[in-house]
Amino acid sequence: MTSNTLNEIEIIKSSTSKIDSVDFQNLTFGNVFTDHMLVCDYKNGQWEKPVIKPYAPFLMEPSAKVFHYGQAIFEGMKAYKDKNDDIWLFRPDQNFERFNKSATRMAMPEVPEFVFMEGLKQLINLEKDWVQKGLGNSLYLRPFMIATGPGVIAAPSQQYRFMIILSPAKSYYSGEVKVIIAEHFSRAANGGIGAAKAAGNYSAQFYPTKLANEKGFQQIIWTDDATHTKLEEAGTMNVFFRINDTLYTAPTSERILDGVTRKSVIDIAKRDNLNIEVRSVLVDELVEAAKNGSLKEIFGAGTAAVISPISGFSYKEEYFELPKLENSFAMHIKQTLTNIQNKLAEDTFGWTVKI
Amino acid sequence: MTSNTLNEIEIIKSSTSKIDSVDFQNLTFGNVFTDHMLVCDYKNGQWEKPVIKPYAPFLMEPSAKVFHYGQAIFEGMKAYKDKNDDIWLFRPDQNFERFNKSATRMAMPEVPEFVFMEGLKQLINLEKDWVQKGLGNSLYLRPFMIATGPGVIAAPSQQYRFMIILSPAKSYYSGEVKVIIAEHFSRAANGGIGAAKAAGNYSAQFYPTKLANEKGFQQIIWTDDATHTKLEEAGTMNVFFRINDTLYTAPTSERILDGVTRKSVIDIAKRDNLNIEVRSVLVDELVEAAKNGSLKEIFGAGTAAVISPISGFSYKEEYFELPKLENSFAMHIKQTLTNIQNKLAEDTFGWTVKI
Ligand SMILES: Cc1ncc(COP(=O)(O)O)c(C=O)c1O
Ligand SMILES: Cc1ncc(COP(=O)(O)O)c(C=O)c1O
Repeated sequence: MTSNTLNEIEIIKSSTSKIDSVDFQNLTFGNVFTDHMLVCDYKNGQWEKPVIKPYAPFLMEPSAKVFHYGQAIFEGMKAYKDKNDDIWLFRPDQNFERFNKSATRMAMPEVPEFVFMEGLKQLINLEKDWVQKGLGNSLYLRPFMIATGPGVIAAPSQQYRFMIILSPAKSYYSGEVKVIIAEHFSRAANGGIGAAKAAGNYSAQFYPTKLANEKGFQQIIWTDDATHTKLEEAGTMNVFFRINDTLYTAPTSERILDGVTRKSVIDIAKRDNLNIEVRSVLVDELVEAAKNGSLKEIFGAGTAAVISPISGFSYKEEYFELPKLENSFAMHIKQTLTNIQNKLAEDTFGWTVKI
Repeated sequence: MTSNTLNEIEIIKSSTSKIDSVDFQNLTFGNVFTDHMLVCDYKNGQWEKPVIKPYAPFLMEPSAKVFHYGQAIFEGMKAYKDKNDDIWLFRPDQNFERFNKSATRMAMPEVPEFVFMEGLKQLINLEKDWVQKGLGNSLYLRPFMIATGPGVIAAPSQQYRFMIILSPAKSYYSGEVKVIIAEHFSRAANGGIGAAKAAGNYSAQFYPTKLANEKGFQQIIWTDDATHTKLEEAGTMNVFFRINDTLYTAPTSERILDGVTRKSVIDIAKRDNLNIEVRSVLVDELVEAAKNGSLKEIFGAGTAAVISPISGFSYKEEYFELPKLENSFAMHIKQTLTNIQNKLAEDTFGWTVKI
């Protein structure tokens, strides 16, 4: 293994920058990319030297395993610039760890810490002008790995490419988020890959989500596939339910992604003396609570949207509107979290890491 | 929609051929490709003109949806050359239909019949020297579609690429096939994408299959993810169980691929007066039958291997060896099917289609 001899990143700078053509006030999520990308190939059982180079399309074999068998994983993170122009990452160790867990589940090689962490740092450093100051602004970081090896036989690839691309972002969701509780479709199987950030998990949700969109709902809250009685998570968010003054979220499992935002919400709730219980909430319980008025809030938690309050849910064709609260848990947690991320509040948890 | 105005395929011929460098006697499955490929792009809500051109790598955007969200589907088919040098497809209508079902489930556009069928025919015609005569030889056909549109937001792509690549093949499995019955891992969820030939379904199986390989087993027989009590299918094959003189195979469902080989096996069994029952076989039933000697055969059925007899299975660390039969159902069906496919027997079903 040469992974511990990987201690250098080659940098090939772009001769021009697109930055002046970007309207940072009107970004749609995930569409604009910075001038450079990191590329690191895995061949013959080892990782090659990582290279930062101009952002550009690259050549793929028609029989590349990622096209046929979906061997692909990713992470989603953000970098924030504080008032002193320092740039901060939020719990990058968690994303690195989860990335390699996903890799193992998808029979892909683990990425060395140097390539992931130092890759992120050097790439962000080169693109620091792309990180805008001010609450709500961030640079979205997308490390990912794809199977590049050829061959139309259903077996793990022998070649992989790890990449990092960066996209300036404003907040992810806008407007009201109304959800449907899944009654038929599912996102993950027992003994499946739901806990991995694997590409295939996401496209599986597109069709059911399209059907939900057509009915006027933005997202689906997934339930366990065996019984459809337990509330699990949303498309790219973990979910929290507040019944009276207690906040609930499902325990992580093989079916549920172990979200960094989720675990941070739990820690903030504990520190700030909110009642928090990690246990499955049943659909029936939710409907009952909505009917008797004890259901106060539902919100999603994930890197892209941070905290995304949900305004109502539909179950078996019945729609339940949530109350509009002045001092919601969602607001408190969102403010606390974004203040920590943006270095506007003291980071008592030690979550932020300076680039 | 311009799909019905698609009535022409552009052909750009390769100036050289690799065919003389290919050792047709020693092919490993899915590694060698012919000189040309078909490419058809979908943009702005419509399919563009299909092009047959030299087989070569192509450029992809780093943020292409297939890399991040796994929007990718495929088909697997074979072409056979008879003694008169005519080339035949086996039930291509079934693959075309299934392809578009997979497309719908993955929120991808349906591919027009002309592009799929005429694309296959013209491409194979151009590559007819690559279809070798003789039982066991075939040209493996791989139509597939990937999401090429850019953007790291979990939503369906706006751009797609449909392709066909061809690979000369000999039989897929060699040697004994021993299987493990899945006790923990699963391939598909209720309400999931198991019935679609979606890329993500396959990489999900790599890690469990690797663990099985390490224990000396080639394949896993998947069980239902909720209870792990029902026998469902193998990695890229449907499965049949013969108990006494009755053949059983699971009904297709949301979790099981509706295999073309499977339905052909059922039809052959019926025609040839074998007892066949389409119903779920329970794991306990299988173990019981193995113990009391009524379990006669297990075999997989799929395009790549056609019929793949299984020599034994492991369940809860116990190994059950199957008897070696002289006149197995597997042998009868394999011969019948390959004779039809290779035009060595009359095709009373009307399954074969001449190119
Ligand atoms: C399925 C799923 N659940 C939850 C989350 C939230 O995880 P995190 O807070 O680490 O972004 C994500 C990622 O964004 C996700 O893709
Ligand atoms: C999961 C799965 N099951 C079964 C099969 C068999 O289907 P067919 O007979 O159409 O090749 C395949 C395809 O090869 C498959 O991928």
